Amino acid sequence: MEMRDIDDLPRNAANYTALTPLWFLERAATVHPSRKAVAHGSRTYTWLQTYQRCRRLASALSKRSIGAGSSVAIIAPNVPALYEAHFGIPMSGAVINPVNTRLNAATIAFLLGHSQSTMVIVDQESFNLAEDALKIMEEKSQGDFEPPLVIVIADESCDPETLRYALGQGAIEYEKFLESGDQDFGWKPPQDEWQSIALGYTSGTTASPKGVVLHHRGAYLMALSNPLIWGINEGAVYLWTLPMFHCNGWCFPWTLAALCGTNICLRQVTAKAVYSAIAKYRVTHFCAAPVVLNSIVNAPPEDTILPLPHIVNVMTAGAAPPPSVLAAMSQKEGLDVLSTQTGEPVPADGKTIGEIVFRGNVVMKGYLKNPKANEETFANGWFHSGDLGVKHPDGYIEVKDRSKDIIISGGETSAAWRVALCFVTLKPGVDKSNEKRLAEDIMKFSRSKMPAYWVPKSVIFGPLPKTATGKIQKHVLRAKAKELGPVKLSKL
Amino acid sequence: MEMRDIDDLPRNAANYTALTPLWFLERAATVHPSRKAVAHGSRTYTWLQTYQRCRRLASALSKRSIGAGSSVAIIAPNVPALYEAHFGIPMSGAVINPVNTRLNAATIAFLLGHSQSTMVIVDQESFNLAEDALKIMEEKSQGDFEPPLVIVIADESCDPETLRYALGQGAIEYEKFLESGDQDFGWKPPQDEWQSIALGYTSGTTASPKGVVLHHRGAYLMALSNPLIWGINEGAVYLWTLPMFHCNGWCFPWTLAALCGTNICLRQVTAKAVYSAIAKYRVTHFCAAPVVLNSIVNAPPEDTILPLPHIVNVMTAGAAPPPSVLAAMSQKEGLDVLSTQTGEPVPADGKTIGEIVFRGNVVMKGYLKNPKANEETFANGWFHSGDLGVKHPDGYIEVKDRSKDIIISGGETSAAWRVALCFVTLKPGVDKSNEKRLAEDIMKFSRSKMPAYWVPKSVIFGPLPKTATGKIQKHVLRAKAKELGPVKLSKL
Repeated sequence: MEMRDIDDLPRNAANYTALTPLWFLERAATVHPSRKAVAHGSRTYTWLQTYQRCRRLASALSKRSIGAGSSVAIIAPNVPALYEAHFGIPMSGAVINPVNTRLNAATIAFLLGHSQSTMVIVDQESFNLAEDALKIMEEKSQGDFEPPLVIVIADESCDPETLRYALGQGAIEYEKFLESGDQDFGWKPPQDEWQSIALGYTSGTTASPKGVVLHHRGAYLMALSNPLIWGINEGAVYLWTLPMFHCNGWCFPWTLAALCGTNICLRQVTAKAVYSAIAKYRVTHFCAAPVVLNSIVNAPPEDTILPLPHIVNVMTAGAAPPPSVLAAMSQKEGLDVLSTQTGEPVPADGKTIGEIVFRGNVVMKGYLKNPKANEETFANGWFHSGDLGVKHPDGYIEVKDRSKDIIISGGETSAAWRVALCFVTLKPGVDKSNEKRLAEDIMKFSRSKMPAYWVPKSVIFGPLPKTATGKIQKHVLRAKAKELGPVKLSKL
Repeated sequence: MEMRDIDDLPRNAANYTALTPLWFLERAATVHPSRKAVAHGSRTYTWLQTYQRCRRLASALSKRSIGAGSSVAIIAPNVPALYEAHFGIPMSGAVINPVNTRLNAATIAFLLGHSQSTMVIVDQESFNLAEDALKIMEEKSQGDFEPPLVIVIADESCDPETLRYALGQGAIEYEKFLESGDQDFGWKPPQDEWQSIALGYTSGTTASPKGVVLHHRGAYLMALSNPLIWGINEGAVYLWTLPMFHCNGWCFPWTLAALCGTNICLRQVTAKAVYSAIAKYRVTHFCAAPVVLNSIVNAPPEDTILPLPHIVNVMTAGAAPPPSVLAAMSQKEGLDVLSTQTGEPVPADGKTIGEIVFRGNVVMKGYLKNPKANEETFANGWFHSGDLGVKHPDGYIEVKDRSKDIIISGGETSAAWRVALCFVTLKPGVDKSNEKRLAEDIMKFSRSKMPAYWVPKSVIFGPLPKTATGKIQKHVLRAKAKELGPVKLSKL
């Protein structure tokens, strides 16, 4: 008793368009043309101006024959140019490849080569780094090196000398480059929503960095999902503490355009700068990795403005995402937890460890030029995160560790570094002469709360080494542990 | 200088799933299983219970061989069963066809025949109506009529006699029908997001009602877009004043599941019931057609609770959508205004009238079994709304009238009914003996604000005839105008 007609209505231009977050910008410029879109120091741009600047960027790129199939690297902190690049580069048809400013020249050389970037847009403070990377590429190329075009972003808050140097080396100033483009440029949305929009690299702690590719559909859906799980509404004032070069700032560049909100840029994330921006711009929302949040919360009183003049909403995730956040984000698209061994869901007992795997439209398109990694990561039609976790009876998933950090101790599964050591950073102001007693307290507390094989054998005080995105550099800690040696450890 | 690899990453099961709002329900039941999902009189259901009830419904339908290619009609006001039908019916693979409870039996007979509904779920108060419609169908069928299965929704607030009668006629009680299904039913999402999810009929003022088909992709995107343009956040308490049978309640049944909010059902929308529900449930949001809103705002004091105990957010659109709402909603997906004649955008002068046409992913899939209407409606790759409007210099679009209501008067384009008459409903309490003076005031005011050919030739007092969704029944007004005759009109 079927009626075929009910599904016999094909797509047409009126009812089907490729999903892309680029439309959000056109809409913001149409609906709120004079609302503040981006603020950076003394510079502010409205949504209309931002749209025009992004169209200029797309136009200038097109004039240089950069478009579909090209990738454009950008090495910059959270400045307006990096925000504009999230629209202007894909509006030309090219893929944006934001690069972590704290990587070393050799890694950047690898990234630029692997991504085949035909242009590098670089903040004036990172120009030397980019220059060194290009030199490394040239040396390795054995003669057939075609250097990418270099655009330098000037910033009035930086040393004019570094800019002068860059220009002397032949780099084109970003604003000059924009001027070469047309502010009414007739950009085209992607023909297919599966087309790539962004490329970002993993930190490469165990092997070469892998290029993570995101498509227009995923970027659109992730951008629209952010307001769903977080009370961030139309007209929000968003402070850029999370680097945009990190996972495209969790797609918030596009979310802010969808919300016609205001982006407050921040070159350097210090507690003082964060508090000051909150008060000055009446910031309503920001995102930050847990360690960054920690440094803001525990800042010395002279750097803070407390109590805050208004409510500020904070989203955190990353190195050790709170289970609630992770679950909420993942369950948006449906999530299951499978144990690594059997491929079966673990019981919701808060104990049984499994690998967190998921599937959905916001999962990356794949790793660039790395079929082997894609095969492993997408095995059995699931994205294998490499994160290990437990599922609690209430359904929340708690991330325990990376699968690579797990070792077996006395027949029990445990996180490697927990077996050996406990690294502790004291709050500013805590008396350091008490370290010995503090260490004893921690051990005592651990014994009362954890199984014996989890109790740290030693407590080490000092700052925790972190990556640019706030992840703890566990390999540095491991090296430190090795240095201390087993004898010393067992003695403590 | 292209890199083909950047787009050479095909879809797989981990990173591509069909968009469908059905996942929202699974997520709500997982993340907030014990939060209140639906309240109706003394009955409340949690999100877990709602999910289980919807799975039972899908399962019970499957057992009756209802699935892909079937359509299921439901004739009911805003009760839990209609909410559940928005998930349970598509979870079986079938298409939900909600029917306006205020249609007459002949129209419902046409709808049930055209939609080839294999099942009719009907509220006990509409049972007689459904019965009459089925009788008409049988009479017209000349012997080969296969009556659809009838399920009756019982409601403790209604006359038990009507339920008894329905059961006596062989209808199955809805709760009994649910019991025949499995609460752990393994429902399947659509294989293709272009698959149809819902069917709704136009009011058919000029011809036979047309069946408007919506697909899973559009329903998902519309549901996710609602929070973007309206500050409706996670956990909202939403009052059902807008009928769910009208354009699937603007997709809010699915939005509420996405937000894990609470649905407050309302059988009959009276000002008193609305105010009472707002206070009782701490309602945060509701939607209503402008005329419904008008009756709430102008209710007699004894029916109101004012000032309201808290802020309530209201969204309105429909018969005469405020330009801001229309523009905001349409521009989400990109909107252009084209003039009917030339297909060129009208100038943003607030004067030049054009037809409002648009395109985007939330535009319907098409009219069911009506290729001619589809050809006209989707001409040149745009959805032709039939609404006429002007574009203001600030970009807002103001809806002026339906294209079918426009006539030419003295060489000038104008809305037909405005030329002849002005219909006015007085607020309760206004002295009716003053009608003559009021009429003169209105004419005077009109002359001061409008071109001469727009000034009403007459003012007529009385209630405005409205459809179930609050649209003014212009054909009734036209009949009234005809009745009054041209002589009388010119006299006034």
